[in-house]
Amino acid sequence: MSNKSLAKNHANTCVLVTGGAGFIGSHTCVELLNEGYRVVVVDDLSNSSEVALDRVRQITGLAPDDDRLVFYEASILDRLALQRIFQKHDIDAIIHFAGFKAVGESVQKPLEYYWNNVAGTLVLCDVARDNGVKNLVFSSSATVYGEPEFIPITEDCPKHDATNPYGQTKSMLEQVLTDLYGGDEEWNVVLLRYFNPIGAHESGLIGEDPKGIPNNLLPYVAQVAVGKLERVGVFGDDYPTPDGTGVRDYIHVVDLARGHVAALDWMGGKTGTGAAHTLGEIAGEPAPDGTRRGVGIFNLGTGTGSSVLDVVHAFERACGKELPYEIKPRRAGDIAENYAACDKARAELGWTAQYDLDRMCADGWRWQSTNPDGYATA
Amino acid sequence: MSNKSLAKNHANTCVLVTGGAGFIGSHTCVELLNEGYRVVVVDDLSNSSEVALDRVRQITGLAPDDDRLVFYEASILDRLALQRIFQKHDIDAIIHFAGFKAVGESVQKPLEYYWNNVAGTLVLCDVARDNGVKNLVFSSSATVYGEPEFIPITEDCPKHDATNPYGQTKSMLEQVLTDLYGGDEEWNVVLLRYFNPIGAHESGLIGEDPKGIPNNLLPYVAQVAVGKLERVGVFGDDYPTPDGTGVRDYIHVVDLARGHVAALDWMGGKTGTGAAHTLGEIAGEPAPDGTRRGVGIFNLGTGTGSSVLDVVHAFERACGKELPYEIKPRRAGDIAENYAACDKARAELGWTAQYDLDRMCADGWRWQSTNPDGYATA
Repeated sequence: MSNKSLAKNHANTCVLVTGGAGFIGSHTCVELLNEGYRVVVVDDLSNSSEVALDRVRQITGLAPDDDRLVFYEASILDRLALQRIFQKHDIDAIIHFAGFKAVGESVQKPLEYYWNNVAGTLVLCDVARDNGVKNLVFSSSATVYGEPEFIPITEDCPKHDATNPYGQTKSMLEQVLTDLYGGDEEWNVVLLRYFNPIGAHESGLIGEDPKGIPNNLLPYVAQVAVGKLERVGVFGDDYPTPDGTGVRDYIHVVDLARGHVAALDWMGGKTGTGAAHTLGEIAGEPAPDGTRRGVGIFNLGTGTGSSVLDVVHAFERACGKELPYEIKPRRAGDIAENYAACDKARAELGWTAQYDLDRMCADGWRWQSTNPDGYATA
Repeated sequence: MSNKSLAKNHANTCVLVTGGAGFIGSHTCVELLNEGYRVVVVDDLSNSSEVALDRVRQITGLAPDDDRLVFYEASILDRLALQRIFQKHDIDAIIHFAGFKAVGESVQKPLEYYWNNVAGTLVLCDVARDNGVKNLVFSSSATVYGEPEFIPITEDCPKHDATNPYGQTKSMLEQVLTDLYGGDEEWNVVLLRYFNPIGAHESGLIGEDPKGIPNNLLPYVAQVAVGKLERVGVFGDDYPTPDGTGVRDYIHVVDLARGHVAALDWMGGKTGTGAAHTLGEIAGEPAPDGTRRGVGIFNLGTGTGSSVLDVVHAFERACGKELPYEIKPRRAGDIAENYAACDKARAELGWTAQYDLDRMCADGWRWQSTNPDGYATA
């Protein structure tokens, strides 16, 4: 079956967003709706809340019964549920966020991670293909670079073994999706390699809502700021970086969400020079209507590295109080420094990150201070 | 649940052999039964024949109702079927062969390959774990070395991207099985990296029975010898090898099968120095009864490279006629030369290949000439 066209107006385009109730997913729903897309969310709520989607409606001014945003509580492993959704909605493209994402947990529960993330994606792709939908944006990660061979990291930087099963699922799925195009040149795939998404929508209505003690720096810092945790643990202060703490490329989640919208336009042939070439990327002949074919790879970051202490201090400015922190030993597998080269996304997608670290922290603080228990209080 | 012990007599040990009706699987069943093991075969017969198991009984002198060999027609993706099998049989260890294996087909049907091989293995491991069986020998391949960094290839040779989805599934599953041990130190995994298995059991009763036109050299040559195909295609005669044709490490399938029996003894702590160390391998603390824990990696080859023309000429000697061949262009992805260093298997498993190329071809010819249509005529 031939693939759907993306060379049409946003208002006529329906996007299936898997994991759409999650952190990045919910922010992407907002940006899609703002751009006029129709959105169908599939989420099993295993690590997210339906309240996030109520908030998405609130932010975008959609009435509860407005069918521009539709939600299904289902796992991507549920073939029958997916089949029903594809039959009911004329889906044009998929943005695929659904997946377990806790690095430490993935080491403890590898089978569960491989099953949920890898097998889930295989089911999703199979049902999508059966319904003639072969446009897919995949939520990948800078973790596929492993210990990067050079910095800033371009998309040509060779992939290296991720140090944990979570990262392996991202790397393996990049391979699977690349091979899909190898076997069927109708596929139109974009792999987006995220750096470190933080912050929240400026409304303070949606944000990151981790279960239990946060694994990532920002929600941890935010919970120290609201008094739920005592002090920030800083893992290592003797790295070869300006202040000795690890440097990462933090990106505002709204910027990241907009990168997905930009990717859809690029896939539809509305932007891009076609000149860029990336290791592992395959550029196929576009469809007659200009819709791209092949596998595109883009880093989504800011291109700026910030240290752990930079983040702590930016958050102090945002919340107006001093935040206690404690230097702890380095963690196994952590690297000193990691930030993106973003030239390719700028040239091809016409996308760059707009918000700086202070803005990320200000928005993150607004979300955390007005929703100290996340969506649980809603 | 703690893992089953392998530190007991073979006669008290029950081995689940997935894909046990296939080429390598059926030969391994013979060797297991010869050594006194009890064998439960699971095979979906998608690329194999139950006749092979009748022949295994014939070779090993088992009556049709002898429950030392039991067969279930089921896919490893069928969780319920597997669960019933584990409940009915006190399985101690798994030798996992089941998987699609046609390189070219895998490029055309990547989703099917990833689903069958990767998702299937995840289901198998999940059910096995639920039943306290964490001893597993995995049928891997020298394809995980990609274009090898050095020759002869030791187990320390870094893995490289396989050039096709079939090879990717092998590489990914090695990672998955290694991560299983990372999350649960009860696991006892051996990854066997096969070079090029050919030949057949000396009885001529079991052998390779490819569907359609064979993908691999030996069955192709054999079908030329019986007159089913016109001439052998030799892909490239300008490689930097003694006669210009590609060099591979062919291993007699009976030797390969015995390598699996040797791996089970090693896992049970009955052999091995524990001194060997391999890139990617993890040696855990053995169980109190000496059963190993961790992930062991072994090449199974002969250590001798033979060219395509060596194979053609050896087969000519075996069948007593001249075999026409034709030089064709190189195939994409083929490498010039590839053979194993087998020191580690010798030192740790106490295993070495016994049979030379002439014996492989003689046994292969006996199988092919007495079963020109494979099991279909049985």
